[in-house]
Amino acid sequence: MKLEQVASLVSGTLAGEDTLEISGARGLENAREGDITFLMHNKYLEALKNTQASAVLVMEPVDVSIPQIVVAKPELAFARLVKEFNPEPRPEPGIHPSAVMGKNVKLGENVTLSSGVCIGNDVSIGDDVVLHANVVIADNCIVGDHCTLYPNVTLYRNSNLGNHVILHAGVVIGADGFGYTLDEKGCHYKINQFGRVVIEDHVEIGANSCIDRAAMETTLIKAGTKIDNLVQVAHNCTVGEHSILVAQVGLAGSCKLGHHVVLAGQVGLADHVTLGDQVTVTAKSGTFRDIESKTVVSGWPAVPTGTWKRYMATLPKLPDLAKKVRELEARLREVENSSNDR
Amino acid sequence: MKLEQVASLVSGTLAGEDTLEISGARGLENAREGDITFLMHNKYLEALKNTQASAVLVMEPVDVSIPQIVVAKPELAFARLVKEFNPEPRPEPGIHPSAVMGKNVKLGENVTLSSGVCIGNDVSIGDDVVLHANVVIADNCIVGDHCTLYPNVTLYRNSNLGNHVILHAGVVIGADGFGYTLDEKGCHYKINQFGRVVIEDHVEIGANSCIDRAAMETTLIKAGTKIDNLVQVAHNCTVGEHSILVAQVGLAGSCKLGHHVVLAGQVGLADHVTLGDQVTVTAKSGTFRDIESKTVVSGWPAVPTGTWKRYMATLPKLPDLAKKVRELEARLREVENSSNDR
Amino acid sequence: MKLEQVASLVSGTLAGEDTLEISGARGLENAREGDITFLMHNKYLEALKNTQASAVLVMEPVDVSIPQIVVAKPELAFARLVKEFNPEPRPEPGIHPSAVMGKNVKLGENVTLSSGVCIGNDVSIGDDVVLHANVVIADNCIVGDHCTLYPNVTLYRNSNLGNHVILHAGVVIGADGFGYTLDEKGCHYKINQFGRVVIEDHVEIGANSCIDRAAMETTLIKAGTKIDNLVQVAHNCTVGEHSILVAQVGLAGSCKLGHHVVLAGQVGLADHVTLGDQVTVTAKSGTFRDIESKTVVSGWPAVPTGTWKRYMATLPKLPDLAKKVRELEARLREVENSSNDR
Repeated sequence: MKLEQVASLVSGTLAGEDTLEISGARGLENAREGDITFLMHNKYLEALKNTQASAVLVMEPVDVSIPQIVVAKPELAFARLVKEFNPEPRPEPGIHPSAVMGKNVKLGENVTLSSGVCIGNDVSIGDDVVLHANVVIADNCIVGDHCTLYPNVTLYRNSNLGNHVILHAGVVIGADGFGYTLDEKGCHYKINQFGRVVIEDHVEIGANSCIDRAAMETTLIKAGTKIDNLVQVAHNCTVGEHSILVAQVGLAGSCKLGHHVVLAGQVGLADHVTLGDQVTVTAKSGTFRDIESKTVVSGWPAVPTGTWKRYMATLPKLPDLAKKVRELEARLREVENSSNDR
Repeated sequence: MKLEQVASLVSGTLAGEDTLEISGARGLENAREGDITFLMHNKYLEALKNTQASAVLVMEPVDVSIPQIVVAKPELAFARLVKEFNPEPRPEPGIHPSAVMGKNVKLGENVTLSSGVCIGNDVSIGDDVVLHANVVIADNCIVGDHCTLYPNVTLYRNSNLGNHVILHAGVVIGADGFGYTLDEKGCHYKINQFGRVVIEDHVEIGANSCIDRAAMETTLIKAGTKIDNLVQVAHNCTVGEHSILVAQVGLAGSCKLGHHVVLAGQVGLADHVTLGDQVTVTAKSGTFRDIESKTVVSGWPAVPTGTWKRYMATLPKLPDLAKKVRELEARLREVENSSNDR
Repeated sequence: MKLEQVASLVSGTLAGEDTLEISGARGLENAREGDITFLMHNKYLEALKNTQASAVLVMEPVDVSIPQIVVAKPELAFARLVKEFNPEPRPEPGIHPSAVMGKNVKLGENVTLSSGVCIGNDVSIGDDVVLHANVVIADNCIVGDHCTLYPNVTLYRNSNLGNHVILHAGVVIGADGFGYTLDEKGCHYKINQFGRVVIEDHVEIGANSCIDRAAMETTLIKAGTKIDNLVQVAHNCTVGEHSILVAQVGLAGSCKLGHHVVLAGQVGLADHVTLGDQVTVTAKSGTFRDIESKTVVSGWPAVPTGTWKRYMATLPKLPDLAKKVRELEARLREVENSSNDR
């Protein structure tokens, strides 16, 4: 692709040779000749000078020898070019003879059902859907248009996927929520979970993550939210739009998250916790209290990150502090004694 | 169902119109007309007054306008009604033509083998068992009566399930325990794991959880224990009866848990830890020491929860405490100096 | 097997009856008559005296009545005998009729493809490979010799396994790394991940663990590394040779680990963290800073383990310390007042 076309594709302003041939998009360090790269921050200017890339996406013109394309959001333009040069491959539409379907299955246009796929009764599959090998979809599910379900994904009954949803291998949607009550003999009696899961448009869920179905209503993942691998979302949770749940995060039951929430790796939320919009919980932290919008919190139990950092800075001083207190006590006793002596 | 029948089903005492038609069971907030709900605690009395439910299960008569059924355990009675109104659907018995079986497989009555199921040699499957699509059962396994294995469950060889066991999608039973020893060259030499897993009656295990087989004897999950999603139970562990392991809990090797133990979300136990009966470990905590029966512990390393809360209450005061100690020292020095001056 | 043969197999020196028949290898407590056991440390000498074993592997001769084999590494010799007496069973070579293969699949000698296996285009499978039921291998993958992939394993495209690799049930290799950038409307725009995963020789990966493919280059697990269940390795990581990642460990993107690193259970590493060779991070800890070789660290954020233990020893004293400081202040005030009075 000519650099001129690249610039046009990302709606950028080109400075440099417009007929340069660009064949790929890579980061500053990985870029090779023929690649376009991007400058995320001026602190990487030195790295840019050493890059092997043939062109660069920048926010404002910089002093380098290679052609530049000026765009408002270089990383976004870069991501668009990565997609252009490395489109996700898509298997041919068609139904493998070993795929199994129940009664009343509605298939859209250009659907791929790979080998071992098993679809229950009363299921609707939208257009341009790819179900990779051994995907299992139980009764009464809806899969929207342009969805990709990687191998060994399981949808329990009544699961509902919007459009452009991506579920990675081993994802389990709609397994029973974890609900029991003790019976007269001290045994856990199962509370049947008859709710469902709804996953809205453009949600992506990482490998082996689990979204449990609600006890009686809906576990809801709203549009644009991205969930990493090995994440647990318990029954009755609502995760707001465009949120990020990093790997190994766990949400207990009935949590409500606003939009653009970020939960970093291994974060845990206790049940019934409400997080406002744009809340960030840093890695390995957790909270059993609600958190207000636009707050960044850390620790377990979580406090504002600045406060947590102050605690953490004090922690190393603790042994010394304890020693100091013992010394002070000894010195004070001496002063007291000498005072009494007088 | 007439309210009278409902009362009889839960062995409760009805106060109110006995011919009222009840068609569902839902919580206070979710209940609609025709539903029966339950009052777990008098603090929800206000919510009860606003409920849309047509009847309520209570521990003792309360002052509301809708008919009441008095029972000893309202939540348990409610759970029974939920099951009555929302029985777990069960696929028809039968063997899908794509299911594969080895030699010497014994199948009970009313068994469902869905598409893609693969069963090894010398396997016994009890009555009323449902193996959902793509379940894989290796050689020498026993599956008791009334078990349900959801899609993509794997049982390694020699796994042994009791009756009424539920394994959710993606569960892995009996994978090799994690055991190695360094060889002469500093490489990890695998210690073959030739033990097995035994899972007793009425155990339920959540999606994508893993129970490793013992090195040489038995990893044992005792009757009535409920395990949530993404839980790890390492080789040689024994989990006592009616215990609860919440999502993302991890047990290292050779842990021994008593009965009615509760491990909250993301708890970790070091290897060879013994927990007595009715021990509770709160969320995100962990222990490498044994814990006595009937103890509630928190933190890492865990201490009694009351103690942990006291630590956590002190933590915010630390920066101030450090400041205070510095002040005290300055004041003390002044006193010392003035004392010396005299 | 005669004890003499056993001694020869582990290159040990036999003291005792050489024609004794040995039929198994078990630990001190589990051993039965006919078993050989091992003494790992002299502190188990008492247990050895009570063992039911018929022979024992020792580092130097000890005072017991049963025959002894002296070897440099008793546990290693034991592991070799465990393998001898309990070889991992291997299904017969052969291709199940329900296995599906794409174009240009190269199969080695003695390969087992079980039922429901699905292999894409341009895949190479080495000699003596076992693909258990429902394993899915996407396009352009390479599987070396002597690999075993347990049921429901998924390899995304371009994944590359060395020789003697073991992947347990539910493992997902090569799913998309978790990479997005915000677009103009505040939506997460996916950065296509066009890299790959390379797993070198003798790596073993536990059930339901996930190794994401690199954004553009390679996520690399080096030779001899052992990974437990439910572990997350994010895109662009390099894990050095002979490392150990215990269950539920999580590595964020672009971490670089040296050789013989040990990450205990539930450890988390922030992105771009570098750990030197032989670093150990103890359970439930985490770091967002690099760690130098041969260091043992604990806590979150991690510090040297000795330091962390000192913190933890001080923590219980905190409430008392705070009380003590209040007392000191009161006493000091008294001294100050009496001093002023004078």
